[in-house]
Amino acid sequence: MTVRIAVAGASGYAGGEVLRLLLSHPDVEIGALTAGGNAGSPLLAHQPHLLPLADRVLEETTARALAGHDVVFLALPHGKSAELAAQLGDDVLVVDCGADHRLVDSWAWERWYGGDHAGSWPYGLPELPRADGTRQRDLLRGTKRVAVPGCYPTVSSLALAPAVAADVVEPEVVVVAVSGTSGAGKAAKTNLLGSEVMGSLSAYGVGGAHRHTPEIVQNLSLVADRPVGVSFTPVLAPLPRGILATCSAQLRADAGDVRAVYAKAYADEPFVHLLPEGHWPTTGAVLGSNAVQLQVAVDPDLNRLVVVAAVDNLTKGTAGAAVQCMNLALGLPETTGLSTVGVAP
Amino acid sequence: MTVRIAVAGASGYAGGEVLRLLLSHPDVEIGALTAGGNAGSPLLAHQPHLLPLADRVLEETTARALAGHDVVFLALPHGKSAELAAQLGDDVLVVDCGADHRLVDSWAWERWYGGDHAGSWPYGLPELPRADGTRQRDLLRGTKRVAVPGCYPTVSSLALAPAVAADVVEPEVVVVAVSGTSGAGKAAKTNLLGSEVMGSLSAYGVGGAHRHTPEIVQNLSLVADRPVGVSFTPVLAPLPRGILATCSAQLRADAGDVRAVYAKAYADEPFVHLLPEGHWPTTGAVLGSNAVQLQVAVDPDLNRLVVVAAVDNLTKGTAGAAVQCMNLALGLPETTGLSTVGVAP
Amino acid sequence: MTVRIAVAGASGYAGGEVLRLLLSHPDVEIGALTAGGNAGSPLLAHQPHLLPLADRVLEETTARALAGHDVVFLALPHGKSAELAAQLGDDVLVVDCGADHRLVDSWAWERWYGGDHAGSWPYGLPELPRADGTRQRDLLRGTKRVAVPGCYPTVSSLALAPAVAADVVEPEVVVVAVSGTSGAGKAAKTNLLGSEVMGSLSAYGVGGAHRHTPEIVQNLSLVADRPVGVSFTPVLAPLPRGILATCSAQLRADAGDVRAVYAKAYADEPFVHLLPEGHWPTTGAVLGSNAVQLQVAVDPDLNRLVVVAAVDNLTKGTAGAAVQCMNLALGLPETTGLSTVGVAP
Amino acid sequence: MTVRIAVAGASGYAGGEVLRLLLSHPDVEIGALTAGGNAGSPLLAHQPHLLPLADRVLEETTARALAGHDVVFLALPHGKSAELAAQLGDDVLVVDCGADHRLVDSWAWERWYGGDHAGSWPYGLPELPRADGTRQRDLLRGTKRVAVPGCYPTVSSLALAPAVAADVVEPEVVVVAVSGTSGAGKAAKTNLLGSEVMGSLSAYGVGGAHRHTPEIVQNLSLVADRPVGVSFTPVLAPLPRGILATCSAQLRADAGDVRAVYAKAYADEPFVHLLPEGHWPTTGAVLGSNAVQLQVAVDPDLNRLVVVAAVDNLTKGTAGAAVQCMNLALGLPETTGLSTVGVAP
Repeated sequence: MTVRIAVAGASGYAGGEVLRLLLSHPDVEIGALTAGGNAGSPLLAHQPHLLPLADRVLEETTARALAGHDVVFLALPHGKSAELAAQLGDDVLVVDCGADHRLVDSWAWERWYGGDHAGSWPYGLPELPRADGTRQRDLLRGTKRVAVPGCYPTVSSLALAPAVAADVVEPEVVVVAVSGTSGAGKAAKTNLLGSEVMGSLSAYGVGGAHRHTPEIVQNLSLVADRPVGVSFTPVLAPLPRGILATCSAQLRADAGDVRAVYAKAYADEPFVHLLPEGHWPTTGAVLGSNAVQLQVAVDPDLNRLVVVAAVDNLTKGTAGAAVQCMNLALGLPETTGLSTVGVAP
Repeated sequence: MTVRIAVAGASGYAGGEVLRLLLSHPDVEIGALTAGGNAGSPLLAHQPHLLPLADRVLEETTARALAGHDVVFLALPHGKSAELAAQLGDDVLVVDCGADHRLVDSWAWERWYGGDHAGSWPYGLPELPRADGTRQRDLLRGTKRVAVPGCYPTVSSLALAPAVAADVVEPEVVVVAVSGTSGAGKAAKTNLLGSEVMGSLSAYGVGGAHRHTPEIVQNLSLVADRPVGVSFTPVLAPLPRGILATCSAQLRADAGDVRAVYAKAYADEPFVHLLPEGHWPTTGAVLGSNAVQLQVAVDPDLNRLVVVAAVDNLTKGTAGAAVQCMNLALGLPETTGLSTVGVAP
Repeated sequence: MTVRIAVAGASGYAGGEVLRLLLSHPDVEIGALTAGGNAGSPLLAHQPHLLPLADRVLEETTARALAGHDVVFLALPHGKSAELAAQLGDDVLVVDCGADHRLVDSWAWERWYGGDHAGSWPYGLPELPRADGTRQRDLLRGTKRVAVPGCYPTVSSLALAPAVAADVVEPEVVVVAVSGTSGAGKAAKTNLLGSEVMGSLSAYGVGGAHRHTPEIVQNLSLVADRPVGVSFTPVLAPLPRGILATCSAQLRADAGDVRAVYAKAYADEPFVHLLPEGHWPTTGAVLGSNAVQLQVAVDPDLNRLVVVAAVDNLTKGTAGAAVQCMNLALGLPETTGLSTVGVAP
Repeated sequence: MTVRIAVAGASGYAGGEVLRLLLSHPDVEIGALTAGGNAGSPLLAHQPHLLPLADRVLEETTARALAGHDVVFLALPHGKSAELAAQLGDDVLVVDCGADHRLVDSWAWERWYGGDHAGSWPYGLPELPRADGTRQRDLLRGTKRVAVPGCYPTVSSLALAPAVAADVVEPEVVVVAVSGTSGAGKAAKTNLLGSEVMGSLSAYGVGGAHRHTPEIVQNLSLVADRPVGVSFTPVLAPLPRGILATCSAQLRADAGDVRAVYAKAYADEPFVHLLPEGHWPTTGAVLGSNAVQLQVAVDPDLNRLVVVAAVDNLTKGTAGAAVQCMNLALGLPETTGLSTVGVAP
């Protein structure tokens, strides 16, 4: 089986990473590559690392250009996917790397993003445990629509879900996640210039103001089957890729062996790795890979659980998840075309 | 008045930063510069940025070499200051940039550092509010011994002290502080190689295991006049200098205007700046300066206070504090030779 | 004497660096701060490191706003200085950090920059030796107009001038200069995003296409009193500040002791330092300082001179030179407000 | 066919990169992994990015441990390969990533490396054109010994070989190559600490003193069939991986269309890409890939050729070349397990 795919938003970071991964996917043929303002220019001008596609020229992003493919990846700014997706046939697998279809609650969409809510699609975090004992991947098999999670929600939810699912922590968590700059996208903004970000650290969206907050709340509340409070602060650091999330919560008095809880939760997961004791996650180790590396600790003075997790925001945090979900939706082995090997140093 | 100073540990990062600052201090004459393994080599080999001292050669660190100065700065590994300090006269001002004399409790020293406790010296964080309404600087005027705070405790304590002092938060705080690499010193270690740290983020000392934890606990408990629990996680990021601390705590129901609390607490402080609303601290803005930049937010969903603070770990986090304390101890204006102007971008 | 200064282009990198330096200049009072598109916004939004100016608001750049000052610094894009300067009085010292008045030849301006040539002003590289045995600084004393050199020409010309002046090399030189990103300015461009520049190196303006080429040619030809050919290639590297130039030329057979030539040329210069043998320049050592660090080597197999020089492109490469020239023009000591101490690590 | 491989020096950067590539090579089974001082520790402690090998423990590097494999990769410090290789059977393919067997001339080895010369092996730069019209790959098919080139010689030789082979330039070239830090290896040295290299640029081995100089001379002289002089200066920049080489030489008067020379030279090469006009190489675009990206320019004022080339020093510069040569030696398709797709941004 060869699946013909198209990528809308192929000049951006998420689109480029989808293409990077698909170039080594054995069952895929790369079709239309579209863009907005960059339509008409050679892909090489935007993605000089994709040499096998060096002769491609970007088309305008339209439903017509995307027609005739088995799978369409949407890598567009938030608010841009919904209308386009509505024009794509129900028989086409649409994988939305953007935010439009992630949130279930309309009010949450309206509060954090504004504008009309497009409704939600099956959420593309296969490893997420559900309150009924199943995993999120069961909802992704055979689906024709996937909402790829945000990068911060991916790493934060996977870091906390086992403890929340096992009910060993109080339902209020604190997440401080340090991220590279590619998560902010490729639009030219002064505060994202190399001169500004190199040699500096900054926080933003503090006090629950970041749009990924409701998504983490949604995930953990689903896992817990009751409301979970999330204090989320993102920090921008001088590296292109990677998120390191430090996630903590008060352990219940009778929490027991919380490490065993994590070991069991992810024992069979191909991409989520609880590291051996004494090893701590680094984002460098997951660069370009679809792996999540985790480690847990308990602060004995406070009886507080601290989970540290590392992910590549563009791979498992975006495009790797998109390909993983495509595999599930198409009935391919979930790990096809994906790797747990990072590029280091 | 010209004060003659010596620096023990002049080939390291803390010692180099003390010298950098003192080179523009109008009341100082730089005397002996000593080192351990680097004794005998030219200072220029270790501090190529200190051109006015390019003809200096490092002496061996001994009490004899340090004798005959008005002020001696100790920039030595922990456990090395106490014995040397004991050999320096009581009439000499000794400013210890290391950890040996920071902790009041012997058991805390033994638990986190090991070995015998050298006892504590006046703690060099002038801006710290005390439960009796005074500031820590009152204890530093005229002193002959100063224990310069650790870099993480400096920024974390200043970020949380106003809320703790005003009793508007619950006495348990969560601090995740992202740091540049110079805080780890200049000893050659594989995990601190440029190849390892560039492009990567890592956590360490998780679960209360970092030695700066008891120092933050000590400071905030002193401010509160009762025990304060501290969950502290440091994260290493790819930049040479700077710490950005994200500090949070549950607000009491009747907390009131917490921003006003901070504005009042630091209104008269020359180095601690609560930024105008809408501006967020970055470490780039305080590079090389003695300033601390702060901003506060309240998460409305959780009623949780989040304070973000930026500091240069080598300047206000170490050497700037050392010079500030020297000024206080000698009766000079506190800000002499120090600046709130950073080097950016 | 207190000199009242204004800065046009105060929201950019050059303007910010001029202000950073002037904040520690003892003879200066900072007056009007103006900008183009950023007029009306607080300076703090653009220069968060300049805390003492945190209450300033940017005015629109007009001749009226700049009137009434003793010195006006122009930190504007090329092509913008000339018209504005023409509206400032002849009694005002105008220091142009931009390119408009650097090139003597109209045809060179037209070829590399395009548009009308504004004419040339005294060139602000005080240390440049002239064919008649004098230095360029002699032309700067008491002047009312200064054209501050480009950053690449500063470091390249100082690296090669002694050899060229002493006629020990063939009149064709090769310069490859690696630069941090701030030299490209603060305009938001995709290729200057942190995500693009971190972890990557790129060349640009290859084959004599960079606008600084004719300026280096002009300087070295002036020094040699005959045409000197310059092959210049700039490389962009992932750091905010600093240029490291590798400059080479064929030595004449009878060149003699070329190191002695350099030692003599810069023996009395306060900012240009030939390092002792065995020490090599790094840009980190000159960060934020007005120093140039040099080292020379001769390749014995080729009898080729290689000079390596480091400079901070924003300080000695732009704003430091501007202040140095202001000092000369006003009759102040040349080094006032400037330092040879870098901020490292 | 499944080939069983061993890696000596598996805890270092070159060894880690060999393993990273071989993990996606379809014809390889990974056998013994050995180390020197790190023997006995888990591979994960040194190569946390190689999750599929997370359960491996490093053995001591001995001929016995390496016995019984079809291919042995040596990733050892210079001077360590020769003795070990002598103990491995003639029927085993030995691929030496170190320097021991690269130089043909004993005197060159003794001058630049010192000690006894081990003799030379077939040089593993398949794309290098030879004076007789063949390529270097012809010498690699079926060989049992390969000397993998140094990283700087790889990129410099490929950048200049077409012009030298076509005799369109004078036989003296100038190379300034900017490199990331991983080329300096993983040994803990103060000058390679993150704090030292981030935010700084430095030159080293200036004036023909770098050990890669004679290797570039050897390659280009072989290509030209006469002596070629090489002025080579390496510059260290703050990134983990990547080399950008700026290579120039005087064009002969009748050089003709030099771009066509390059286009023809590499038209059939799978890994060496002359970019379309207007596109310039960046190291970010080849990160983790086996590609070399090239662009050429002619400076019209000097009639000087400037070639800019980018390579990942660990992939095509070391381990990718090693795998490429293994493929050739074993009769596998040359590109098996290798990619021209980089990981960007």
